[in-house]
Amino acid sequence: MWISHLLLVALLLGYPAALWSGLPEPPAGTGEHASSWQPDPMHEYWDPATQHQPETRLVEGVFEGEACLECHDVVTPGIVKDWRESRHAQGERPVLCPACHGADHQKLIFPTPQTCGGCHPERLAQMNEEKKYGFPSHALAMERVVDSKHFADKPKAEVMACLQCHSVGSKCDSCHTRHRFDPAEARRPEACITCHSGPPHPDDESYFSSAHGQRYLQDGKNWSWKQPLKAGNYPAPTCAYCHMRHGNHQVADKAVWKFGIREINPRTAENIIKRKRWLETCRDCHPPETAADFFQRLDAERKESWRLLYRTENILKDLRGKGQLRPSASERPAYPMDLLARLMPRERIGFFEGQASAFYNVSAIERDYFELWYFSNLSAYKGMAHQAPQWAGSFHERMKASAHAIADRAKRLGEPDRNSIDLKPVWMEGEYTRFNREKN
Amino acid sequence: MWISHLLLVALLLGYPAALWSGLPEPPAGTGEHASSWQPDPMHEYWDPATQHQPETRLVEGVFEGEACLECHDVVTPGIVKDWRESRHAQGERPVLCPACHGADHQKLIFPTPQTCGGCHPERLAQMNEEKKYGFPSHALAMERVVDSKHFADKPKAEVMACLQCHSVGSKCDSCHTRHRFDPAEARRPEACITCHSGPPHPDDESYFSSAHGQRYLQDGKNWSWKQPLKAGNYPAPTCAYCHMRHGNHQVADKAVWKFGIREINPRTAENIIKRKRWLETCRDCHPPETAADFFQRLDAERKESWRLLYRTENILKDLRGKGQLRPSASERPAYPMDLLARLMPRERIGFFEGQASAFYNVSAIERDYFELWYFSNLSAYKGMAHQAPQWAGSFHERMKASAHAIADRAKRLGEPDRNSIDLKPVWMEGEYTRFNREKN
Amino acid sequence: MWISHLLLVALLLGYPAALWSGLPEPPAGTGEHASSWQPDPMHEYWDPATQHQPETRLVEGVFEGEACLECHDVVTPGIVKDWRESRHAQGERPVLCPACHGADHQKLIFPTPQTCGGCHPERLAQMNEEKKYGFPSHALAMERVVDSKHFADKPKAEVMACLQCHSVGSKCDSCHTRHRFDPAEARRPEACITCHSGPPHPDDESYFSSAHGQRYLQDGKNWSWKQPLKAGNYPAPTCAYCHMRHGNHQVADKAVWKFGIREINPRTAENIIKRKRWLETCRDCHPPETAADFFQRLDAERKESWRLLYRTENILKDLRGKGQLRPSASERPAYPMDLLARLMPRERIGFFEGQASAFYNVSAIERDYFELWYFSNLSAYKGMAHQAPQWAGSFHERMKASAHAIADRAKRLGEPDRNSIDLKPVWMEGEYTRFNREKN
Repeated sequence: MWISHLLLVALLLGYPAALWSGLPEPPAGTGEHASSWQPDPMHEYWDPATQHQPETRLVEGVFEGEACLECHDVVTPGIVKDWRESRHAQGERPVLCPACHGADHQKLIFPTPQTCGGCHPERLAQMNEEKKYGFPSHALAMERVVDSKHFADKPKAEVMACLQCHSVGSKCDSCHTRHRFDPAEARRPEACITCHSGPPHPDDESYFSSAHGQRYLQDGKNWSWKQPLKAGNYPAPTCAYCHMRHGNHQVADKAVWKFGIREINPRTAENIIKRKRWLETCRDCHPPETAADFFQRLDAERKESWRLLYRTENILKDLRGKGQLRPSASERPAYPMDLLARLMPRERIGFFEGQASAFYNVSAIERDYFELWYFSNLSAYKGMAHQAPQWAGSFHERMKASAHAIADRAKRLGEPDRNSIDLKPVWMEGEYTRFNREKN
Repeated sequence: MWISHLLLVALLLGYPAALWSGLPEPPAGTGEHASSWQPDPMHEYWDPATQHQPETRLVEGVFEGEACLECHDVVTPGIVKDWRESRHAQGERPVLCPACHGADHQKLIFPTPQTCGGCHPERLAQMNEEKKYGFPSHALAMERVVDSKHFADKPKAEVMACLQCHSVGSKCDSCHTRHRFDPAEARRPEACITCHSGPPHPDDESYFSSAHGQRYLQDGKNWSWKQPLKAGNYPAPTCAYCHMRHGNHQVADKAVWKFGIREINPRTAENIIKRKRWLETCRDCHPPETAADFFQRLDAERKESWRLLYRTENILKDLRGKGQLRPSASERPAYPMDLLARLMPRERIGFFEGQASAFYNVSAIERDYFELWYFSNLSAYKGMAHQAPQWAGSFHERMKASAHAIADRAKRLGEPDRNSIDLKPVWMEGEYTRFNREKN
Repeated sequence: MWISHLLLVALLLGYPAALWSGLPEPPAGTGEHASSWQPDPMHEYWDPATQHQPETRLVEGVFEGEACLECHDVVTPGIVKDWRESRHAQGERPVLCPACHGADHQKLIFPTPQTCGGCHPERLAQMNEEKKYGFPSHALAMERVVDSKHFADKPKAEVMACLQCHSVGSKCDSCHTRHRFDPAEARRPEACITCHSGPPHPDDESYFSSAHGQRYLQDGKNWSWKQPLKAGNYPAPTCAYCHMRHGNHQVADKAVWKFGIREINPRTAENIIKRKRWLETCRDCHPPETAADFFQRLDAERKESWRLLYRTENILKDLRGKGQLRPSASERPAYPMDLLARLMPRERIGFFEGQASAFYNVSAIERDYFELWYFSNLSAYKGMAHQAPQWAGSFHERMKASAHAIADRAKRLGEPDRNSIDLKPVWMEGEYTRFNREKN
């Protein structure tokens, strides 16, 4: 116990994290837990500003103007062709390769949003404006992932799965395919759904289950995608039409329920203003009464879901109170840097206690709740929000089945001989955890 | 017991249902269980004929001819643009807004099939003709849902999930997007799959897993959708090509296995006639032998599935006989209006005993069978029927796994100390059930 | 036991299999287990070379030149229209119906790859060249399925699910829709994904989850599909672009991890050469460093997966050693023709012991491992290989959950009173098994 207090003192004194965290050597990660993880080679593509190292290349020299094209027309014809068809290649003063990549072939750079912002300052400013709305937002996506407690714990082989999508704010080619960078492309749902699909954010599946999505599938190919995202230009809405109306690169100022991971009050002054922004969008096609009725349904669906989620959370809290969550927080290794968890180990249950890190290092029943909350609940929400109520309905069924299974398991956990079985560390996996288990 | 008899007498005397059902006040639902449920605001969009109430609007007045467009070109440009591109806007006598919505802005109506049938009587008659084939049919879809025993029991927040699709016969814009109403649109699969996807009717997924569906995906965009649905006009079939051949809005006269929820004899005189109609459709492209062979495979697949389903049903009937289905029918609240279930409570197992209402209010093992029968079985069927046998194969695997899990659970239910665990009301959820449990 | 030895002698003497296998009569199957299965009528479409029987048709006669079209323009207009639009119908010497189907209407044939190879010898030779790389390959697909131990065991109603896709090497219209046979069609992903979708080979889902696939969805309709599959012709790769570059019909010479069902060493001389072929393909658009980094990630992902798979295999081997796999190999019927399994029954665990036939006839925990290995593992692999790491990530989660569930079940199997419960033959299903169980 006195060791824990010593750690606290060390932290307060500002000692470098690596000294007290018990990890062998300070790796060159970024973010809050920088000392606990080492970047993977692919990381330089996902976060070029902090991780890109220029490669030594066979060809040396400084290339200006169209000089690059002489070779690259031959060695990488695909991307050159894309560029030639882009607006960057048009006009009297085209944007040539060195403008974004630099001229020295031994010190080539990967462009960042700042690079693009040189010519497109309004779009960059809009994206950065998202930061004031907090997470979830594109602008904070990378920070969010590297700062999460479970990131350092994840096997390196799986880290790419996080970084590829969370790089959305670290470079512009997540939505605008390099080297074409065509706004017409980014207006279409496909630009979004490479990331926004599957649980916990089945925006893809729920949109395409709606009448909106079906109309896009049906004749979206014939729409005039060169037109701005405003009333009368598109027969049905797409992701960008509603979430990036008029091309606004700040997508956070209409989000009421946001990701759906916590209950909110849709009737706060701020949320009423946000909802009005939605209603304005909907009325491009629908009478406002219809849209208002619809949002009431969404609120009702959310309320019903949260009733179920809280009821299930209470079951877990009850187990925690009786010491029946096993392995308990004190029986499993704390996350790196999570000093509080070391000093006062306590199982975190639900959003407000910080269960967003329940991907790993939890007991079986905690994981079950995590899946109910993070996957089924969010799928139901997106189904309703995207006007695919049959999608919402089927996830409500799944939520109920999971809630009952959790209640059943909780009952069995209270039986005299069951604790031993569930002591198995079901979700206690990952590189850091392995290290920690061996050392502690 | 004498109370039950009293109820029967009350019913026979024609007393209003609300008086004896025990519910607090008569709500304004529709259908057989009208007294047990209250419509949701959204309901007026799904069943305008019975539920739509004109809204009080800011703008008063009676508008004729093109007068509506003056405002609506500005306030709802999306739908006006759709209308302008529609056939309704063409010619010397265009179909203007008041034709469908009325002229009084304080008494606007939502058009029903009867409204559309004013100009398209043949299509309306075709749809109504479906009624003679019973359910499933588009014409009876709304009746079916509001009359089902579990409808009143469903949480309001989830009711929209049912109504949106079951409104298909209550208004024409389920398939013909308002305000374009283009037959070319309704000929394409997207018009159908907003509803016909996911279990229990994965028509979407199974069609697109077939060679037919893949060819549509590949170059359907280039087909001439203005052409009628007849031989030689389309390189591959779509939903409507086979099920609504020549544009027939009655889709019930070829259905042999229908939804697949009960076993049928494909060799009755009626079904042989129906199959011949299929073979005529198939021969637009295939020699009749191929199609006949294929239907034999479908029959074999169905037989194999029903062998498994009956075997599993028998396990449940055996448990019922031994009183091991817990909570038993007498231990759980009856559905509203289900007088028979009140007088003679009995667990319903399988289609012929009426288990179609097993969405709620059943024990865990009954629900497991319901999922096997209603989801996996129907998915296997649609996979085979839509020429995606690999889809059928994977659901056969799932059916077998479920059947074995049910057999295993049944065995454990027979063990001396297990009844208590399964008494938990796994699927006893919903608003009516909640009400009923508190009052009874 | 002496009976088993007698069987061995019978086999060595070359007695026809049907005599000793215990099956009632020799059916006319093909392949290694020919004597144990009977073809289904549909089989003649999937393997015309060995199974097609000419049908007796109403119309008799020998038809040359364009004579066939006189009737077929009317009776099967769809396919005639396709042919008319094909290259076969163009030029001075069109390829008419009798060229592929024969001229005698009572002896019509279904064309095989050999038929097509008459005019396209290079493509046929390329496909046949695959055979030297072994399975998986298109050329050996039919052989593989009819030679697998579980094929004879499968209910006939489900056999179509295997044959439809495994017919890919037995006729050319799996990829080139009859009667259009347009290379432009076969260059598109839809030509491949009728078969290459769903577990165990979610090539469809993983490709369309990648940026490559999304770009295809977005504007693939506008690409010039008449162009050959080479650098600069396509803005993003498709299945065929990478796997059939330059139209090569031999798709096996780049496959490093192949199906992913066994661990391989990516650093053998042969695999280094294969990977170089990949890198050459990638550099049509990407710098070679990026692609090389990416392949390192794939290797790391595979290594992580195999670490988990081996750990789980060891749990099963441990159970086998302790006799806790129940029903044991000696308690369940051997596969037909599997003489070794009859003489020396032993549970096969993992790829190298031959568990590829674990579809049927295994205990519950063996099946669980099979699903982990064959479905989740292969889905994770394809996700990573097709640049959809978020897909890989979600299947890693599933793999971990399954591995832990298996470990948990294994623990319970070791408890004194559990064996009886798991003796239930969970995956002991199928026609042969049924026959065998009754007779033995």
